[in-house]
Amino acid sequence: MDADAVAKAFVGHYYSTFDSNRPALANLYQDSSMLTFEGQKIQGTQNITAKLTSLPFQQCQHSVTTVDCQPSVNGAMLVFVSGNLQLAGEQHALKFSQMFHLMPTPQGSFYVHNDIFRLNYA
Amino acid sequence: MDADAVAKAFVGHYYSTFDSNRPALANLYQDSSMLTFEGQKIQGTQNITAKLTSLPFQQCQHSVTTVDCQPSVNGAMLVFVSGNLQLAGEQHALKFSQMFHLMPTPQGSFYVHNDIFRLNYA
Repeated sequence: MDADAVAKAFVGHYYSTFDSNRPALANLYQDSSMLTFEGQKIQGTQNITAKLTSLPFQQCQHSVTTVDCQPSVNGAMLVFVSGNLQLAGEQHALKFSQMFHLMPTPQGSFYVHNDIFRLNYA
Repeated sequence: MDADAVAKAFVGHYYSTFDSNRPALANLYQDSSMLTFEGQKIQGTQNITAKLTSLPFQQCQHSVTTVDCQPSVNGAMLVFVSGNLQLAGEQHALKFSQMFHLMPTPQGSFYVHNDIFRLNYA
C-alpha cells in the first residue's frame, strides 16, 4: 500500500472506532502520545482515552471530506483530515479539522504520536 | 520562548509575509519541503514558491482564529492553524485550516518541512 492508501485506511479505522467503540481508540495511542482537543492539551493513552470517552455526547458519526497525507521523518506520516461530525439529536453537523502524526511501530503498524482536533463552527 | 510562543511568532510571520510579500515565503522552505495545497502535492522551495505566488488572487488578508502547537520529534514542532482568508474584492472570507511541521535549523531557527492547506468552504 502506498502512503495515501495507508492514511485513508487509518482514517477509516479511526473514525469508525470513534463512532462505534470509543474506548478501543486506546489501542492507537501510546504513553508519549499527545492530543490537543479544542485547545486542551492531554498526554498519554490513559488520559487521552479518558478525554475521548467523556466528551459531552454519546452517539456521533464522523464523515470525512478530505484526507491529505505527507511523509514526515523516520518513516512517520502526517495525516490531515477535514470532515463533518454529526451528533445524535442535533440538526446540523459540525465541521472539523484534525491532524495526526503517525509513528511506525516495530510490528509494522502505526500509533498516533500527535493529534490535534478543532471544530470549525461553520 | 516556550513552544507556544515560538509557534505563534512563526504563524504571525508566515501570514504577514504571505499577505505583504509572498515571494519572501521562499525563505521558510527548503528543497525537502512539501506542500499539499487543496490536495495538490508540491515539493521544494522553488516549486512551492511558484505555487504560492501564482494563486488566482493577488491581495489577501489572513486572520488567525486558533493556533495549536505540539512537540514532534528531534526538536521539530507541529503547528495547526485555523482562520479566515479574505480575498480582495470578495464579500465573504473563506475559512481555512493549515498545518506546519517545523524543523530546527543549525542556525537555531526553523524551516517548514511539511505544509498542508485546506479551505473549509464554510
